[in-house]
Amino acid sequence: MSQDYLNYLKLPLDLGERSYDILISAPLAQLPDYLIAKNLDIKNIGLVTTQKIEDLTHASAELILELEKKHHAKIVKIILQDGEAAKSWESLNQIFTALLSNHMPRSTLLLALGGGVVGDVTGLAASLYQRGITYVQIPTTLLAQVDSSVGGKTAINHPLGKNMIGSFYQPKLVWMDLNFLNTLPHRAFASGLAEVIKYGLIWDPDFFEFIEKYAEKILNRELDFLKKIIFRSCEIKAKIVSQDEKETAVGVRAILNFGHTYGHALETLANYDPDILTHGEAVALGMRYELNKSIEIFNLDKTLLDRLDALLTQFQLPTKIPKNLLSVLGLEPFEAVEETKFQSLVYEAMQRDKKNKVGKIGFILLKKIGHAVEVMI
Amino acid sequence: MSQDYLNYLKLPLDLGERSYDILISAPLAQLPDYLIAKNLDIKNIGLVTTQKIEDLTHASAELILELEKKHHAKIVKIILQDGEAAKSWESLNQIFTALLSNHMPRSTLLLALGGGVVGDVTGLAASLYQRGITYVQIPTTLLAQVDSSVGGKTAINHPLGKNMIGSFYQPKLVWMDLNFLNTLPHRAFASGLAEVIKYGLIWDPDFFEFIEKYAEKILNRELDFLKKIIFRSCEIKAKIVSQDEKETAVGVRAILNFGHTYGHALETLANYDPDILTHGEAVALGMRYELNKSIEIFNLDKTLLDRLDALLTQFQLPTKIPKNLLSVLGLEPFEAVEETKFQSLVYEAMQRDKKNKVGKIGFILLKKIGHAVEVMI
Repeated sequence: MSQDYLNYLKLPLDLGERSYDILISAPLAQLPDYLIAKNLDIKNIGLVTTQKIEDLTHASAELILELEKKHHAKIVKIILQDGEAAKSWESLNQIFTALLSNHMPRSTLLLALGGGVVGDVTGLAASLYQRGITYVQIPTTLLAQVDSSVGGKTAINHPLGKNMIGSFYQPKLVWMDLNFLNTLPHRAFASGLAEVIKYGLIWDPDFFEFIEKYAEKILNRELDFLKKIIFRSCEIKAKIVSQDEKETAVGVRAILNFGHTYGHALETLANYDPDILTHGEAVALGMRYELNKSIEIFNLDKTLLDRLDALLTQFQLPTKIPKNLLSVLGLEPFEAVEETKFQSLVYEAMQRDKKNKVGKIGFILLKKIGHAVEVMI
Repeated sequence: MSQDYLNYLKLPLDLGERSYDILISAPLAQLPDYLIAKNLDIKNIGLVTTQKIEDLTHASAELILELEKKHHAKIVKIILQDGEAAKSWESLNQIFTALLSNHMPRSTLLLALGGGVVGDVTGLAASLYQRGITYVQIPTTLLAQVDSSVGGKTAINHPLGKNMIGSFYQPKLVWMDLNFLNTLPHRAFASGLAEVIKYGLIWDPDFFEFIEKYAEKILNRELDFLKKIIFRSCEIKAKIVSQDEKETAVGVRAILNFGHTYGHALETLANYDPDILTHGEAVALGMRYELNKSIEIFNLDKTLLDRLDALLTQFQLPTKIPKNLLSVLGLEPFEAVEETKFQSLVYEAMQRDKKNKVGKIGFILLKKIGHAVEVMI
């Protein structure tokens, strides 16, 4: 391998025969050579992306130029619709039809070039096409880089529930070019930061302090600091996933859901419309709610909530329910009666969640910073 | 366990943590107790079957009576349409919708009560519902018992190709009540016998002789002989599958496709209509074709073809292309010109098969009886 590779941060995810590497700060242009160096078959490639990525970047053109012109790969490009609506059977079938009508064989490599939605759908397509083909994640958002591209959860939605149809199917490689992060509007970038904060809270007090200390530099997207927070986030996620790949153990992979029980309920109420509430904004509010519960139940130091609020505020993440969400629900900014109404709507949504058994709701709470546990309340 | 269990033939399929047992000649009424003895969670059950099984047997009523009334299970019954058309996204989604609208949790157990189609679709649904739940195969046809219910291949069809969307997802148990075989018309029963013959040819000359010797008793569906041929067929399949679960090695699991390269091409020409050609009839003709090729290429003893023909004839399986299939294709029963036309249609269909690379066709041939190899011609 050439000297260029030395600039990568390389993080192994240990899952026995399904192990793979996460490369952080790896220039997209070098992906083809890396695939070849890793003996991955690149003769037939399905490149899945969205129109937004096409409009904002030259990424697919760059990949195609390199793979097709230089390495004579046969490439089928598949452009999914933008947004959560793409997590559907129609998108999945769009991929299958494109591959089949181009006679793409079982040795085809799928590249998922995009955010979490593209990664989830492409991963599921890879797990099902001819009973399973190889895929590589190329996450283009901070949220996908620190969360959804790592760990092999794939899914589409069903009209009766989000992520209800899916699989655990690991990629062969996760390739993160941090230049993509410059294309993100602030709200999308901050959405990823909420998950970064989460890793500090559930796993690593020092990392939380690091985020606090360098919040300004992170907010300015300084490359060295992005590398640092992405690497540490992925390192923590990889550690947790390797202990409980399929989320079957109590309180192992599940701790990644800190902030998500309440957060998902908010997203449901917002119809998963990121204009109303991004995933990270929902998680931010969820972490506040669940931190409050932790303070109540485990006598956690109250100052941690102040520290979280300070960080959320600095990252322009919400610390109270946004007006937009309230007006979707026909509620006025909080007076006491309206707040009660709102909380009971959230409570109902949490009870409907797939992870909850009748009468009880599962939360991840903090016993202290860096130590998360699963409880049923 | 009670003495009753002693009548079962129990065959382990060794796949590490995905290992499971195949129980042969196991009365359906005893399945619930067995599930409990095996510590499988039976609180929530999705029972997938077809109208034909409902009309021909009391199986689902019997299971529901036992599970619901005696063990207080919550049961959702899902009746798929009959035939190959059920291997579709619509059927899969019918299962998802039924489970979700009944709030069936991740701990739900799916029971696949039916032939190969029900097993394939239910297995795929189990692999995808909430990223994977437990399922049990209860095959009701000889073909499903000796072939599709064992080994974890699941699939639906895509308009552009059969079995193109699927997964490798192993059941927790395969439960074979041989009483179901009495409901089968002769053609369906004989369809399974073609696969039984295949196991003798690819793996075990003694088993082939056994089938020849007791063909009459097998044809009369004498229970002891059914037990024997089903057990040995499953034993051979289990051995092969345990060596190459996901069909990635050359010439390991692939040898199960003896007779299937040519056979699948015939089925394609017959539009997978079993009224024109059953799967076993296609495999019978495929085995003849591929045995002929084996004689040509490996100097295999020609008398083996005579022995195969005698067996096929005794089981009322075809030894030449049926008139029905020819007339679907607008061809007359063979004159020389028509035969050339027919063979070139089959050849084209084989070249379109997913398993074949451009210009070459993969066949399983016999070096001698009991020794199959994969070749590209």
